Amino acid sequence: MSEIGAAEPWAVRETGVPDDGELRQRESVFALANGHIGLRGNLDEPEICGMPGTYLNSLFEERDLSYPEEGYAFPKRTETIVDAPNAKPITLTVGGERFDVRTGTVTRHERVLDLRRGTLVREVEWTSPRGVRLSLRTERLVSFTRPSIAAVRYVARADAPLRAESDVRVNEEPPEQRDDPRASEIIPRPFEPVAHDRDALVHRTRRSKISVAAAVAHVGADGIVSSEPDLLRWTAEGHGELRFDKIVAYRWGGDEDVRESALRERDAAVAAGFDVLTDEQCRHLEAFWADADVEIDGDPEVQQAVRFGLFHVLQAGALSVPGPIPAKGLTGNGYDGHTLWDTEIYVLPVLTYTHPEYAERALRWRHHTLGHARDRARELGLAGAAFAWRTITGPECSGYWPAGTAGLHVNADIAGAVLRYHAATGDETFMREAGRELIDETARLWVSVSHLDADGVAHIVGVTGPDEYSALMDDNVYTNLMAQQNLRAAALDQHSLEIADRIAIPYDERHDVHDQSAGFTRLEEWTFPGDRFPLMLHHPYLNLYRRQVVKQADLVLAMLMRGDVFTPEQKRRNFAYYEARTVRDSSLSAPVQAVLAAETGHLSLAHAYLAEAALLDLRGGGESGGDGLHIAACAGAWMALVMGFGGLRDCGGRLSFAPRLAPGLSRLRFRMRWRRARLTVTVTPGEVTYAVRGDAATFGHEGTEVTVADGDSVTFPLTPVEDRPAPPSPRPPAPR
Amino acid sequence: MSEIGAAEPWAVRETGVPDDGELRQRESVFALANGHIGLRGNLDEPEICGMPGTYLNSLFEERDLSYPEEGYAFPKRTETIVDAPNAKPITLTVGGERFDVRTGTVTRHERVLDLRRGTLVREVEWTSPRGVRLSLRTERLVSFTRPSIAAVRYVARADAPLRAESDVRVNEEPPEQRDDPRASEIIPRPFEPVAHDRDALVHRTRRSKISVAAAVAHVGADGIVSSEPDLLRWTAEGHGELRFDKIVAYRWGGDEDVRESALRERDAAVAAGFDVLTDEQCRHLEAFWADADVEIDGDPEVQQAVRFGLFHVLQAGALSVPGPIPAKGLTGNGYDGHTLWDTEIYVLPVLTYTHPEYAERALRWRHHTLGHARDRARELGLAGAAFAWRTITGPECSGYWPAGTAGLHVNADIAGAVLRYHAATGDETFMREAGRELIDETARLWVSVSHLDADGVAHIVGVTGPDEYSALMDDNVYTNLMAQQNLRAAALDQHSLEIADRIAIPYDERHDVHDQSAGFTRLEEWTFPGDRFPLMLHHPYLNLYRRQVVKQADLVLAMLMRGDVFTPEQKRRNFAYYEARTVRDSSLSAPVQAVLAAETGHLSLAHAYLAEAALLDLRGGGESGGDGLHIAACAGAWMALVMGFGGLRDCGGRLSFAPRLAPGLSRLRFRMRWRRARLTVTVTPGEVTYAVRGDAATFGHEGTEVTVADGDSVTFPLTPVEDRPAPPSPRPPAPR
Repeated sequence: MSEIGAAEPWAVRETGVPDDGELRQRESVFALANGHIGLRGNLDEPEICGMPGTYLNSLFEERDLSYPEEGYAFPKRTETIVDAPNAKPITLTVGGERFDVRTGTVTRHERVLDLRRGTLVREVEWTSPRGVRLSLRTERLVSFTRPSIAAVRYVARADAPLRAESDVRVNEEPPEQRDDPRASEIIPRPFEPVAHDRDALVHRTRRSKISVAAAVAHVGADGIVSSEPDLLRWTAEGHGELRFDKIVAYRWGGDEDVRESALRERDAAVAAGFDVLTDEQCRHLEAFWADADVEIDGDPEVQQAVRFGLFHVLQAGALSVPGPIPAKGLTGNGYDGHTLWDTEIYVLPVLTYTHPEYAERALRWRHHTLGHARDRARELGLAGAAFAWRTITGPECSGYWPAGTAGLHVNADIAGAVLRYHAATGDETFMREAGRELIDETARLWVSVSHLDADGVAHIVGVTGPDEYSALMDDNVYTNLMAQQNLRAAALDQHSLEIADRIAIPYDERHDVHDQSAGFTRLEEWTFPGDRFPLMLHHPYLNLYRRQVVKQADLVLAMLMRGDVFTPEQKRRNFAYYEARTVRDSSLSAPVQAVLAAETGHLSLAHAYLAEAALLDLRGGGESGGDGLHIAACAGAWMALVMGFGGLRDCGGRLSFAPRLAPGLSRLRFRMRWRRARLTVTVTPGEVTYAVRGDAATFGHEGTEVTVADGDSVTFPLTPVEDRPAPPSPRPPAPR
Repeated sequence: MSEIGAAEPWAVRETGVPDDGELRQRESVFALANGHIGLRGNLDEPEICGMPGTYLNSLFEERDLSYPEEGYAFPKRTETIVDAPNAKPITLTVGGERFDVRTGTVTRHERVLDLRRGTLVREVEWTSPRGVRLSLRTERLVSFTRPSIAAVRYVARADAPLRAESDVRVNEEPPEQRDDPRASEIIPRPFEPVAHDRDALVHRTRRSKISVAAAVAHVGADGIVSSEPDLLRWTAEGHGELRFDKIVAYRWGGDEDVRESALRERDAAVAAGFDVLTDEQCRHLEAFWADADVEIDGDPEVQQAVRFGLFHVLQAGALSVPGPIPAKGLTGNGYDGHTLWDTEIYVLPVLTYTHPEYAERALRWRHHTLGHARDRARELGLAGAAFAWRTITGPECSGYWPAGTAGLHVNADIAGAVLRYHAATGDETFMREAGRELIDETARLWVSVSHLDADGVAHIVGVTGPDEYSALMDDNVYTNLMAQQNLRAAALDQHSLEIADRIAIPYDERHDVHDQSAGFTRLEEWTFPGDRFPLMLHHPYLNLYRRQVVKQADLVLAMLMRGDVFTPEQKRRNFAYYEARTVRDSSLSAPVQAVLAAETGHLSLAHAYLAEAALLDLRGGGESGGDGLHIAACAGAWMALVMGFGGLRDCGGRLSFAPRLAPGLSRLRFRMRWRRARLTVTVTPGEVTYAVRGDAATFGHEGTEVTVADGDSVTFPLTPVEDRPAPPSPRPPAPR
């Protein structure tokens, strides 16, 4: 039994030994990554493991998809994340007894994820069954500054002979998978060996033919090395103290000689030394927090969780070259390691406004997959580009098309992320090289998939919006508004602009609310008879699709992304209507419900949803978090704070704020970048201050345009907002 | 190369040796069956084979279904037809040379399916490579009067030593399957051996644990028998002539000792002898044709094809006990041997009006699956019974739910078939024991799946009608009207009747036509740009679903099944509208288009669609016919004639006629049963005569109620109908 301790502002602390029921979730919480390499937070001793997990961005294996009943253009192959060579295992023997926290007596077991240092420290005091006392300290890092490097410092002390076996293991036996459609398929023994020696193991995936080299060095103690195709083992002995640093370098894919380059990277890291690696890590995080930190006074748990989430967004998104940001980052194998639309809509806003170079690299990765997207559009009988609903390298990997291929909105989401990035940075080089083409090709898709009816109204029919409890709907408001924005930004020709202008936006006059999709508000109501969540595990799509039950923010998300086309009164009515029908069976829901709750004056509810999003992985203990963290929810906590209470909006490329605080919150401060300026926004119950440096910044405050010069600041009294009672909901916010 | 010869009224004749491209289709055409045992029309020599195929009704193996992305209530297992012990192979050696029509010289090769004798006769004149002349005649039958018996008479003559090896083979190597979603999965080696001796082989399917015994006897020549687990071989020799009868008895399933009962059946058949078997067969067919024959003067090809179709409907439906009638009958393994809604809507009308005892047994089989249907309804969160979209013994086996489980209309189709059977026969025993429960339980399903909107209109939302190029639609007219009929027949309570009365029937005022489903006529038009058919093999559902393209009669089928609720003018406009959008990618389409074409005065078009339906399998050479005949299209030819040109309707249990003939047809005569009466209806260009015997009959003629006494007849002048030009169609009727 273990627990995550009381909220600390800059650390997450676990005390006690996690038991079998806790292991998988904690391994996700304590995962370290740098956008390229991800190490789950496994203990050093490999026997005590929920799921091993060493992931290298875009290292995947191909797998055939087969269907009970085939259909044209159903994807025939998928890509699945695989476990890379695992360099975490270190087995320790103390006086002939194997160190195992499930035996003997543990008097101290603590792990600390340090959000400013960027390392995971573990400290153990253990007495062996025969009474030998061991003191162990390990510190693990995955370097933000060296994309190929991971390292651990291992220090064991005991008044007895010590012997460590430090491994790199390949093709390990996989653990049993959960029976959940969101869990990953496991490909057993994905690698064939290519070479092995005392410095490195080289392998290649059997079918996707990706080469991987893991080079390792142990520094600080003498050891002997044995090497076989799937195992490199360094063994060292000592007495009293055994102390060493293990430096691992991974190189994979590409045309290079992976072994050579891994050795080069390893040697450079060895030459620098572990202390330099941690110094670099600290400096990198200092820079990160300077632009990304969010301070929230009045809710220490949320304060900690928001930083924890931002740290994991960084770990998932810290790309040094173009690459995907998977839904689980590199913290687990959930969703097969795929990247979905959450990246553009949930993760990229944070990165765009804090570290836009990462957003750029994620969008350049999308651009790299344009060939696949064009092929897919042709296969679907459409023009332009149809980006994959889920993928690792670009091909469509969705196996259930009504909630995959039919989610065409991903294309407008990508275009929207490009527009946001461009508005925030003014990066014309990116637009010329990638952004413009992304916008134009997705716009061509919308032209080909929409049609003008006899009344001249444009429709997009038979698609699936964000809410996956509705599918193959007509005129999904979110999709149509995002497509409209996409079409207007491309401005391909008169016809395309006409479609944008005439796009159908279904509205139910009787209830005076927008229809999420045409006819939605006329569907049968869901009765919520003692429901178990998520509903999708207990009800057939047949029943979900035909009812007014919403899995996740859809129309409410439209009101965030295209807030400019809704009146405040519409937003209030729509929010109440959809809140009463939204079960939040996706982690993508709470952040957006929080933002619109704040905008519509439900401040305490916004706070509750902020907490639901922020605490989901850190303290929620949700089973699915064991497959990896919900990176979009991590980013969503930032959205809930900055867009919710900060009131940040960026519709049409115009930056604006309308801050408000929930009762009990005494201060919110966030930093962000806008063009060449850096803004610090400080909200208190009485006022808001916008401080600017680097360049002048122009933005809106409560509908008024404000320009603040470099080094200057401006303060406004806060527009008072009365906290409105929460509208009815089928599922109250998750309790703390 | 071979060909099907010119049309003969009572036979189908093939001359020449079918080549590899023809084999599979011909094996279906020449298949023999009796509702229980089906033998594909393979040559005697097993090497020359498109697909072997010996099927025993409801003999299946279980198979797991897995999905790239699982969903709640997706069926986990399916049932697949398996190849039963194959008693067809007879290998002949002539003077030491193997008889093989691919070698030597064939001077004559003819096969005749005799529709009155019920046998398949093969006659061969062959000269071996070394110049020995062989004359071979075989006659094969599957006994209608003895459900367990198949037999062949084998007569070989040559001026040389003759040696025959006559086998029963089990677990044969399967042929390669076509790459088509409608083809079957093949389960290799489905049987485990249980026992073998010189009389019989006994096996059991590995997973479904169904026992099968094949007992065999050879009569008329002495032979030696060898037996091993998967092979029973009888070897005989002769000189000049080798002549024998091979009698095979199959017993399977049930609680009985299958070996014992197979031997008993075999011995009884042996005691009767081959000549008695053929006599019984002739007498049975005489009785069949007396009630079922349709005569059509002016189109000999269609005359032959309609009888061919009726013969195969009999072969598929001649159930001696309750059992399923699969979509392919027992002529092939297409659709995995499953039974679908075609049985109730296409096959049972023919049987109901000609041999109602077979219709009764098919409906009693549905009733036997009621337990599965109730379980399925509960799994779907619905009340009453949800019958399988496709199945062998009852469980839902559909692997693509939008065109499977969502096709809830199958339940109303079953209820409709019960109502038709009851109206036609007045069989109250059946209603008490099975029919009433089928109607009530399906009505409960409709109550639970429909809902009343704020205006008091009842809706059935998110279901799939007959047209599988639309899915998850709202208020499909066919579904709603069939559900209405179902609800009214059940009359469970006031609420259920209210739903029936208030059911939505979408109508497009602008085009003045019914919407196939809500909003259908507002969808984008399909442009038919040089399309290849079937569209489903060349276009994604994403494109098909969102367009006005119709796979098969849907609204048009509603106008047949519920013709009473459409005005003649609506029928004309609807027919023209949907004809222009229907591609007939299902064989279920042409028969219904034919009937409504006739009703709306498109007489030549009706004739063309009649021919398309009738000739599909016999002369169409469609690739998919190699997996088995389209039994619904076989029955559909009868529908096209009797409902089309005969104008038979039975809406609301009232029998009526409105005959008309296409130009070029000089006479149509058909027989049918109604209550205790037998009607013979003779239509000529000038008049129609209704002759009645057995009991008086009351029916409508062109809106006038007529009663004709036993032994009497009545003649009316034919109401003149001008042949209207065919409306535009994306795909003209198949050319002859």
